Amino acid sequence: MTASHHSGREVIHSRHNPLFKQLVKLAGSRRERAKAGLALLDGVHLIEACIDAGWQPEKLVVSEALDETPQLDEWIECCHGKAVWMAEALFREITEMECPTGILAVVAIPAAAAPRLDGCCLALDGVQDPGNVGSIMRTAAAAGVDQVWLSTGCADAWSPKVLRAGMGVHFSLPVLEKVDLVAALSQFKGKVAVTSLRQATPLYATDLRGDFAMVMGSEGGGVSAAVDALAKVRLTIPMKPGVESLNVGAATAVCLYERMRQQEYS
Amino acid sequence: MTASHHSGREVIHSRHNPLFKQLVKLAGSRRERAKAGLALLDGVHLIEACIDAGWQPEKLVVSEALDETPQLDEWIECCHGKAVWMAEALFREITEMECPTGILAVVAIPAAAAPRLDGCCLALDGVQDPGNVGSIMRTAAAAGVDQVWLSTGCADAWSPKVLRAGMGVHFSLPVLEKVDLVAALSQFKGKVAVTSLRQATPLYATDLRGDFAMVMGSEGGGVSAAVDALAKVRLTIPMKPGVESLNVGAATAVCLYERMRQQEYS
Repeated sequence: MTASHHSGREVIHSRHNPLFKQLVKLAGSRRERAKAGLALLDGVHLIEACIDAGWQPEKLVVSEALDETPQLDEWIECCHGKAVWMAEALFREITEMECPTGILAVVAIPAAAAPRLDGCCLALDGVQDPGNVGSIMRTAAAAGVDQVWLSTGCADAWSPKVLRAGMGVHFSLPVLEKVDLVAALSQFKGKVAVTSLRQATPLYATDLRGDFAMVMGSEGGGVSAAVDALAKVRLTIPMKPGVESLNVGAATAVCLYERMRQQEYS
Repeated sequence: MTASHHSGREVIHSRHNPLFKQLVKLAGSRRERAKAGLALLDGVHLIEACIDAGWQPEKLVVSEALDETPQLDEWIECCHGKAVWMAEALFREITEMECPTGILAVVAIPAAAAPRLDGCCLALDGVQDPGNVGSIMRTAAAAGVDQVWLSTGCADAWSPKVLRAGMGVHFSLPVLEKVDLVAALSQFKGKVAVTSLRQATPLYATDLRGDFAMVMGSEGGGVSAAVDALAKVRLTIPMKPGVESLNVGAATAVCLYERMRQQEYS
């Protein structure tokens, strides 16, 4: 027996329960998330952001140890009653949080949109660190980016770590994964910009207004040669002597906010 | 016997070796680093930055598995020959890197300077994440900050994680720890700025030039009330609807680079 009914609730107690096994896989495996088209939202904050944005989770998973959360009944209703309870020990095997909030949601990963041809796009080329990818997505949304493109070498946008660092940005900012950046940037109608130390103009002396695609590379490797060759705008972020580079999250923030300043505050 | 001499080298093979035990403590314990006044530099890049900046490590610790590093002889000379070799298995207990470069250095943590009263200072109030503290220090150095102040609640500036994220910035930018921010900011002769949602002016409509102290709080808690009360400049970073906040590293980069732009490029 893998589930018991306690006070009318389905409670999962066994590691052999198929849902428990699926949740473990969704938490840990990019391949499994892609195959199922599902991701896990870990914690009250992400679930709140999801539902506030009008998304409907597929299912709620609630720890038996959860203290009452005021919104729980409302969220269960939003999921058409699809909620299961789980023994605390099992719940802790799924969550990555040190202090779990006691609730998870399963959501469908949206179908991939086509890359935009105009507006403001941010392309990340091989940015592997999940915390960086998530916080860069937040910065992008705050600075008015319309769409984020991730190359194949980037962290999985729907992994628990990226979702956590994104703090809900996934529900408002479209993110496209495994994008062929060369193809997408070739068709883009506006300026394509990279940060560079060669043949570059200072950030503050460059016109960043209008349709704009900003490409950021990994800290170690920069952008790939094929992508670099497509750039019509080459920017240098000024740095005082003795510093070689900025963290990719900091560099992205400086570039995107300078664009916002030029577009809206100058 | 805790060390053997092989080809004239001292090689540590035992976990009971006092130096090995000290290195483990220095890697893992803030208290031990403070007591000994020593920190560990993990990897070729940090050691190179340290020596290039004119610092002299107290000791080099080399893994027996190290492939030849071109600079090794020069570095050993810089340390007046104070190098020890260590069995690979022991070395791996000290390093935090997944792919260790095979060399560590022990350096003396510089004596604390007094907080500056002018110039450009960055104060972090309760920023706990070591990766954030290290990459913020890099951003600060790149943007022309003269001194970084960390409150007691911040991550240890000399921990391996902060050093790694700092990528050598520790050797050029003075960082003061356990700073009484209220005392330091009260005496500061220039503008004291915080980011705020209350009674604030937009970043791009605020004069940030001249002597300037920027205070950044933790993402969860913001700056403490006593520090907030000292702020003469209250800034809001513009954000598109739907985004609540930026990662503290991104927010710091946007503010410090806007100051640099105003000071040097407008």
